Amino acid sequence: MTEIATLAPAIDAESLIADMGRRARAAAAILALAPTDQKATALKAAARALRASAATILDANAQDVARGEANGLSGAMIDRLKLDPKRLEGVATGLEAVAGLTDPVGQIIDETKRPNGLLLQRVRVPLGVVGIIYESRPNVTADAGALSMMAGNACILRGGSEAIDTSRAIHACLVDGLDEAGLPADAIQLVPTTDRAAVGAMLRAAGLIDIIIPRGGKSLVARVQEEARVPVLAHLDGICHSYVDKAADPAKAEALVVNAKMRRTGICGATETLLIDRDFADPGRILAALLNTGCELRGTSEVRALDPRVKPAMAEDWDTEYLDAICSVALVDGVEGAMAHIARHSSAHTDAIITEDVATAERFLNGVDSAIVMHNASTQFADGGEFGLGAEIGISTGRMHARGPVALEGLTTYKWIVRGTGQTRP
Amino acid sequence: MTEIATLAPAIDAESLIADMGRRARAAAAILALAPTDQKATALKAAARALRASAATILDANAQDVARGEANGLSGAMIDRLKLDPKRLEGVATGLEAVAGLTDPVGQIIDETKRPNGLLLQRVRVPLGVVGIIYESRPNVTADAGALSMMAGNACILRGGSEAIDTSRAIHACLVDGLDEAGLPADAIQLVPTTDRAAVGAMLRAAGLIDIIIPRGGKSLVARVQEEARVPVLAHLDGICHSYVDKAADPAKAEALVVNAKMRRTGICGATETLLIDRDFADPGRILAALLNTGCELRGTSEVRALDPRVKPAMAEDWDTEYLDAICSVALVDGVEGAMAHIARHSSAHTDAIITEDVATAERFLNGVDSAIVMHNASTQFADGGEFGLGAEIGISTGRMHARGPVALEGLTTYKWIVRGTGQTRP
Repeated sequence: MTEIATLAPAIDAESLIADMGRRARAAAAILALAPTDQKATALKAAARALRASAATILDANAQDVARGEANGLSGAMIDRLKLDPKRLEGVATGLEAVAGLTDPVGQIIDETKRPNGLLLQRVRVPLGVVGIIYESRPNVTADAGALSMMAGNACILRGGSEAIDTSRAIHACLVDGLDEAGLPADAIQLVPTTDRAAVGAMLRAAGLIDIIIPRGGKSLVARVQEEARVPVLAHLDGICHSYVDKAADPAKAEALVVNAKMRRTGICGATETLLIDRDFADPGRILAALLNTGCELRGTSEVRALDPRVKPAMAEDWDTEYLDAICSVALVDGVEGAMAHIARHSSAHTDAIITEDVATAERFLNGVDSAIVMHNASTQFADGGEFGLGAEIGISTGRMHARGPVALEGLTTYKWIVRGTGQTRP
Repeated sequence: MTEIATLAPAIDAESLIADMGRRARAAAAILALAPTDQKATALKAAARALRASAATILDANAQDVARGEANGLSGAMIDRLKLDPKRLEGVATGLEAVAGLTDPVGQIIDETKRPNGLLLQRVRVPLGVVGIIYESRPNVTADAGALSMMAGNACILRGGSEAIDTSRAIHACLVDGLDEAGLPADAIQLVPTTDRAAVGAMLRAAGLIDIIIPRGGKSLVARVQEEARVPVLAHLDGICHSYVDKAADPAKAEALVVNAKMRRTGICGATETLLIDRDFADPGRILAALLNTGCELRGTSEVRALDPRVKPAMAEDWDTEYLDAICSVALVDGVEGAMAHIARHSSAHTDAIITEDVATAERFLNGVDSAIVMHNASTQFADGGEFGLGAEIGISTGRMHARGPVALEGLTTYKWIVRGTGQTRP
């Protein structure tokens, strides 16, 4: 590892990624055929290695943290970076959880028998080589590496420079796990250099990398979406809406809106805009509940007339992902008004309706064109774990391939298997 | 139509496509919710309009053909361009066939109930706006427009200049059908100008167009894949292999190879390279059968030793899609040798094994990483119609979203619908 890191600056980024990509492709061919047990064994062994190497990993993390503090990283950044024994145990149990997930590879999606006797099956196969570009959370090294591998893919991980020592120490444990299970070490590779040129080389590596998944802040995702020549699975914004219909139960609406906005304000599934039906009986109750939790509200003049604590909303508020205890609020004309606002301003991540009227709910669920639409549920449920996927490698707002939370199945594609007995085409 | 065509040169391509894209998006919102019957009604009405306008369409086509002949188009190009009453009737019945296909929109892919009572469903929804860029076959206007619309999408069709008069006449019938069914005319739009800048504008129209499907020759597909900022569904090459294993039945192998290579040499599913196991008993029989149909063989010295009529193969032969009565031939060491050759040279379209040994067949079917893998069947079956999809908008060798023949389902994505009763996230 140290040797590679020392060599790295002498190698140009394109050649480095090309070489890693070729090794990943070779590993992917083996991973694609690896039985579920063998992949699970690798992850369980990696978890054991992680526990056995706890001291080394925490030492490496202390170096990252010290360097971060010296470089003036914010408190929030340092917190994201920092591992302690409890967080590290969480990373290890996370690996074990992925080892226990249902393996999608080899699943038969559907099969048909043609009149000429040909049997056609669509069978799940891995995507191939997954590139993951992330920032300062060192646990992504373990999570993303594990999910990619369990779905039969090879992956190339490019972690942020802030967490590089921790990422290297964790990566060494993943490689130990692969070794122990008899799988190729090249199945999970970590880019040895923190040179930003390596990111550009990954984004241009069409043919070597099959899909890029960026994990991190908006500027990272925006750069990846802008520059990539490889398909990208990601979401840029989570501008999520909760709409309170006139037929909403007021108590339910209050609880849902407060949870959707305030449970955790920094996650992509947090509601950023509250829409209230002009015919809803008690909008003031919802506003007061949010204000009483310390949430800043920004509303139209109509909304401000309901509660003087509401600040004025500017045009850009409707297109802003606050990721903070701030909520924009507008009144709308029923579900059609809500849908029109959402069509204009949603980032197609998650949008919810709160109503007791089933027909109105169906209108919203069918008519809103977002990756996730909800009825009488908190937008904060937008999460692979909460969806029962066992984990998630990200949430996609793209329309192709996979939408919403992406876990093992989203890391696969399919192939057609045709079984004949000598049929020729007339 | 004439009016738009006259206006077109005054509008720059970017603005033209942006305007078409916005109108397509609005139409897509309506199409996404249109019931199956309404979409089928539009296609059946379009078929009637096509029959009623036969004289007009054939006149328009005669103009295209006359212009093509004056411009020195090849005989093959003129043949592709030319409609006659029988071909036109084929286009009309094609529309009716699409009207009868199972509508994927609204299908529930899977559903789960979470322990907290949330019901999660993944439901098929249209992709949105499909851009189709094609060359001289005017029937693509009808086929691609019909498939896109039946899957609930709006589409923007950009036909080649050679067939533009025919495309316009056919497009007018599709619009008549939409009108008659009460669906927006903007659901199927034809780019009014033949200015090549419009293609570039479509390829850059991320956010306006959700997917681009090129239909045409290799240079068109290569340009689209190179320049597009919008996801592309296509295949560049169909370098398909048939492998005759030592455990192949000789008579079956002969029939399959001749069909796979020679039934139609110009289609993407035609076998381009024949691989024969060194331990197969009678390779000369397979070579003679191909040679006797008039196929040129290009082989290694080993192959040439089997039959003096075999010409020498150059290195580039293994990476060439002949689309002609030419076949490259190599001997390999069993299924592993065949898989190694295919991994290096296949375009991941369709590859087949011919053997009576089931274990060997399974090894090949699992180990070859192509969109379609076949056992004891002709590679010429690689076709949406033959796969029972009712039609196809193209064959994809990409790994994301859809692989192999793509029909209605491949023109959809899914969204998550979450049905709650007031659940908040702890």
